[in-house]
Amino acid sequence: MTSLKILAICGSLRQKSNNKALLQYAMQQAPTGIEIELADLSGLPFYNSDLTEKPDSVTKLIAQAAAADALLLASPEYNYSIAPALKNALDWLSREPNNGVLAGKTAAIMGSGGGMGTSRAQYHLRQVCVFLDLHLVNKPEVFCNSFGDSFNAAGELVDERIQGLIQQQLQALAELTGKIRN
Amino acid sequence: MTSLKILAICGSLRQKSNNKALLQYAMQQAPTGIEIELADLSGLPFYNSDLTEKPDSVTKLIAQAAAADALLLASPEYNYSIAPALKNALDWLSREPNNGVLAGKTAAIMGSGGGMGTSRAQYHLRQVCVFLDLHLVNKPEVFCNSFGDSFNAAGELVDERIQGLIQQQLQALAELTGKIRN
Amino acid sequence: MTSLKILAICGSLRQKSNNKALLQYAMQQAPTGIEIELADLSGLPFYNSDLTEKPDSVTKLIAQAAAADALLLASPEYNYSIAPALKNALDWLSREPNNGVLAGKTAAIMGSGGGMGTSRAQYHLRQVCVFLDLHLVNKPEVFCNSFGDSFNAAGELVDERIQGLIQQQLQALAELTGKIRN
Amino acid sequence: MTSLKILAICGSLRQKSNNKALLQYAMQQAPTGIEIELADLSGLPFYNSDLTEKPDSVTKLIAQAAAADALLLASPEYNYSIAPALKNALDWLSREPNNGVLAGKTAAIMGSGGGMGTSRAQYHLRQVCVFLDLHLVNKPEVFCNSFGDSFNAAGELVDERIQGLIQQQLQALAELTGKIRN
Repeated sequence: MTSLKILAICGSLRQKSNNKALLQYAMQQAPTGIEIELADLSGLPFYNSDLTEKPDSVTKLIAQAAAADALLLASPEYNYSIAPALKNALDWLSREPNNGVLAGKTAAIMGSGGGMGTSRAQYHLRQVCVFLDLHLVNKPEVFCNSFGDSFNAAGELVDERIQGLIQQQLQALAELTGKIRN
Repeated sequence: MTSLKILAICGSLRQKSNNKALLQYAMQQAPTGIEIELADLSGLPFYNSDLTEKPDSVTKLIAQAAAADALLLASPEYNYSIAPALKNALDWLSREPNNGVLAGKTAAIMGSGGGMGTSRAQYHLRQVCVFLDLHLVNKPEVFCNSFGDSFNAAGELVDERIQGLIQQQLQALAELTGKIRN
Repeated sequence: MTSLKILAICGSLRQKSNNKALLQYAMQQAPTGIEIELADLSGLPFYNSDLTEKPDSVTKLIAQAAAADALLLASPEYNYSIAPALKNALDWLSREPNNGVLAGKTAAIMGSGGGMGTSRAQYHLRQVCVFLDLHLVNKPEVFCNSFGDSFNAAGELVDERIQGLIQQQLQALAELTGKIRN
Repeated sequence: MTSLKILAICGSLRQKSNNKALLQYAMQQAPTGIEIELADLSGLPFYNSDLTEKPDSVTKLIAQAAAADALLLASPEYNYSIAPALKNALDWLSREPNNGVLAGKTAAIMGSGGGMGTSRAQYHLRQVCVFLDLHLVNKPEVFCNSFGDSFNAAGELVDERIQGLIQQQLQALAELTGKIRN
């Protein structure tokens, strides 16, 4: 029985993205009752209020977010801030009437790269989530520096410390969501 | 004789963008010797390191930035942060070898919208500019709230207070650029 | 019967602080069951780990925080960031073993001043609260610009819009606390 | 002949502060022509506009800042933001008429501690410097993690990588100041 539905969104569009690998690790080891779906941002255009009809890629993303209890966000850090592909996905989701598909839900943030494990981007993302009215997991924060051999040749996360943090964060997200949605 | 070349970049893709109107006001009243060119972001894809060949839109933007002495950045505030189209343009520009087309240059920031005149987005943008190694004008900051009648029916900026701030900021950018590039 | 104990902390040390007035309004109109106590920061020294014995002012503040379910924070904005007196109080509280008196609790933030209603300071304060592991009310945010006549000659808050926001925020804090502490 | 006067301000009040050690390293190896003076914050009260007479400690700090061409700021990171003692010193300095002792000058930032080398605090400090109208060195940023043996038993900085960064930053500050003050 699924009791918690999570939509995972990755800010990198690369096929072999380290950030996608973080989310895939979370998906693989999610305990029974937690179902994680990965959003596909590849067809999403930049938000532009001149676009009067929503592209299918946007409609699908909105439906996925509406069905989810919580978000799991992973992003590389580009120039000390959020990857535009992730920010743009959140911008599209925020345009629904009354912020309807996100407000009051929960989220957790992780990231790989950027010299400081994407921390600079993550605090920007936390400010974005204030407006979105998302309740964020505070701890543990997941900062992966991508140095050395955190990922194997197949691009999979093999760093045990980061694996442990992701497991703890997912547990924290489940607990927070349980409290908030009551 | 042109002594200062400025590349203007707008974070909104709307045809009748208020932020474009801010930049167009700056272009119209730029004093002799200051030439401002407006970048076209409409064809720019999301940055993705899997793209091995640069699209023409990127190549053109890089050439414009390389030829410019300074940047003039205008952005709406989406969800308390930067519009992805502007951030993405800067991300593309930052990928040139050794941050070659931007590092050590100058920039100024303005914006319209967001309830606080885009101030929340502007401080994120300032953090981005640390990594880009851009020297920013501190004052005046240009925060346009878009309330009431700052823009006329044709979409032109008619708010005299904001017009004055833009003129002052452009002057400050010219002075700072004169000092920095010596 | 008191079901919710809140510790209010004000970043301004002025006798007739507008920020204290915001908190006093919250105290006066708190519904039955919500008890708000105002911390006294006047004797608090700067945090310094060379101080081997805690001053009485610190011991008292720690006891008040330990007894509280939630924090209500108000701060002026000094130079686009948090007033040091508030930050220093939080720094003292964070030094207890295992962040013991704050972690996992809830908080709400309000402020008066700074040209943008202290918003720039509030986002810094929100980042501080990530480390403190405080769950923050997202909405409504309370930004009081102190223009014109938000306060009467006696220094009391008389701005009905801000009064309404404070009431809503206090209600939101009570609801969030109810969910989080279960 | 002294051509550049720098006022160094340390956010930690500890006798054996690592951040003071960073500044002391800068002082010891400053090239001829650069004179660095260390501010004494030990007697500085919290800023409070109710104080109608400036304490001597404040008057002295203002005189030192007025005489300086540039600031060198070092701070630990407390709870993901600036140490209050440093912020408070800047708040006092900003209260002079027309921001008179700081506006238009230059500054550089370094720090030790905080898990991320104080980077989270440093970006807050950069936002503060926008209002103060200080022109900041962008690169190199000096983030010292205080892990292992960056400091010897006497508390002196012995980490050669950080030493090199401080030397480069001091050089960058001298160059920027030379350009800005012309």
